[in-house]
Amino acid sequence: MKAVVFDEELKLVEDYKKPELKKGEVLIKTRMSGICNTDLEITKGYMGYKGVLGHEFVGDVVEVYDDCNKNWIGKRVVGEINCGCNSDSWCAKGLARHCPNRQTLGIWQKDGCFSEYFTLPVENLLEVPQNLSDEEATFVEPVAAAMEITEQLHIKPKDKVALLGDGKLGLCIALVLSALNVDLVHIGKHENKLEISRKAGVKTKLLKDLEDSDNKSFDIVIEATGSTGGFETSLALTKPRGVLVLKSTIAAKEGLNLAPVVIDEITVLGSRCGQFEPALRLMGAKKLDIKPLISEIYPIDKALEAFEKNKQKDILKILLKF
Amino acid sequence: MKAVVFDEELKLVEDYKKPELKKGEVLIKTRMSGICNTDLEITKGYMGYKGVLGHEFVGDVVEVYDDCNKNWIGKRVVGEINCGCNSDSWCAKGLARHCPNRQTLGIWQKDGCFSEYFTLPVENLLEVPQNLSDEEATFVEPVAAAMEITEQLHIKPKDKVALLGDGKLGLCIALVLSALNVDLVHIGKHENKLEISRKAGVKTKLLKDLEDSDNKSFDIVIEATGSTGGFETSLALTKPRGVLVLKSTIAAKEGLNLAPVVIDEITVLGSRCGQFEPALRLMGAKKLDIKPLISEIYPIDKALEAFEKNKQKDILKILLKF
Repeated sequence: MKAVVFDEELKLVEDYKKPELKKGEVLIKTRMSGICNTDLEITKGYMGYKGVLGHEFVGDVVEVYDDCNKNWIGKRVVGEINCGCNSDSWCAKGLARHCPNRQTLGIWQKDGCFSEYFTLPVENLLEVPQNLSDEEATFVEPVAAAMEITEQLHIKPKDKVALLGDGKLGLCIALVLSALNVDLVHIGKHENKLEISRKAGVKTKLLKDLEDSDNKSFDIVIEATGSTGGFETSLALTKPRGVLVLKSTIAAKEGLNLAPVVIDEITVLGSRCGQFEPALRLMGAKKLDIKPLISEIYPIDKALEAFEKNKQKDILKILLKF
Repeated sequence: MKAVVFDEELKLVEDYKKPELKKGEVLIKTRMSGICNTDLEITKGYMGYKGVLGHEFVGDVVEVYDDCNKNWIGKRVVGEINCGCNSDSWCAKGLARHCPNRQTLGIWQKDGCFSEYFTLPVENLLEVPQNLSDEEATFVEPVAAAMEITEQLHIKPKDKVALLGDGKLGLCIALVLSALNVDLVHIGKHENKLEISRKAGVKTKLLKDLEDSDNKSFDIVIEATGSTGGFETSLALTKPRGVLVLKSTIAAKEGLNLAPVVIDEITVLGSRCGQFEPALRLMGAKKLDIKPLISEIYPIDKALEAFEKNKQKDILKILLKF
């Protein structure tokens, strides 16, 4: 089968071995998948991962290992990407995404979904409602990641929230929080990208238009730029005793001053993957329109071209069609 | 009057002007005060402060501005060091220590307590119970700062807590948390300092004896080293979804990787000054013995010598006697 594989270099393999099912698993035929920045990072060495890339998908269940799961055959599904050991306290709490022995689809010890077929445990699956297109359904994973903020943190109705970063992560968070009626100011560098937020009813502001009076004025600030500068700006915008949500990984190369965290008693909250069920419910209720985030759709045969395109500035989500 | 003043350099001034009382204030005759690392930082330029240093003290009220406060005269007191504007929402919540227009004794826009006399608003005062010596009473400020952790964070009875750093801040936190029955492991570099914790019933471990199995094993980790390395070790020790309390300011000079905060969804909680009343209650109940933290007591006339001594390794708290 065709598969996009990273093994020192990125390649499109024509005859990758079709995966064999294990107990509890189903075989999924991929309909569509999305390229995430994590995929790009892996091609630069992140996680030391080798194998089939990809963790955002919608597909059809075509085979099951266990007879008791045969009602899943033919269903269009999305699925949680972390596969826990099912025998520790993390898994018991429904937090397989923190299980120390987890496998993560296309990221850690498990071939991903940039291939014609792949496997997942049946408990990871959710059926996609008919009113969601394949394009929309591939966004359940990033929408769940955005909603993770609301699982970790109680955003009160009167809280003033700022969001930094207008890449696809920032825009996805903006659309989700707007759907949830959060009082949000989306701050970015690109008028054309912020326009997507603005059309969804979000207040926006160019980074260069921030004023002194914006400093220490937000109860919650969400950092989604992934840059040291973004982190520092986020810190400056946060009220004393406020919360800075770190949604993208930061690795400062030239020093970083955390003194304001202590002086203003700020809470820095790291936030990663989220749960699919509430994300799918939000999307199924048509409470947000994710389609403006799609830049282009490539056939799987042009996957390498799609990866190249994904590196360009101003590109948002690129989907792969199977 | 005698006063230890920082103005480009540190000096002992013999004829510093005695402060004049304003409405709501009392005049305090200093009995004893303590040198804090913040005082040292100020002499290196921190906060850009110029004036009388010092914010840890015990003293006697000798004069009041308002007749209605004359019952305070003759009382031995300690006092909150932040003076708010009394007209914003921070002050209304009892959080003058975050009031943007606050003055802070010996740190920001208000002469401190390393002088024979100084002033504070009457609402900042607490009377010291007779069973506390002057030496003990000067520790109310650092004990309150340690207790701030328990104001910000619910430490549950079964939580596993690690504390990094065996300087005077770390030791003070260890004694306070031990008094509060927290399940604590105190990690440091110095056997002789950790011995103070051990005598108070705290489990201790040398930094060099940390093992792989200690990683991600603590619900709460308190960073009190003030070093980038200490922060990174603290991150490694924290469980996924755990809390890293940042008790000392960190300014990384050579890069800092915050990716683990996101991957493990860790909460980094900045923590600074605390409230005096519960700290005084804890000390008055004789639930901790702070005296092992005292390295030396200098007369005020030898204040400059005391500051020099304070720079030495292995020195814990140095007190100034008036």
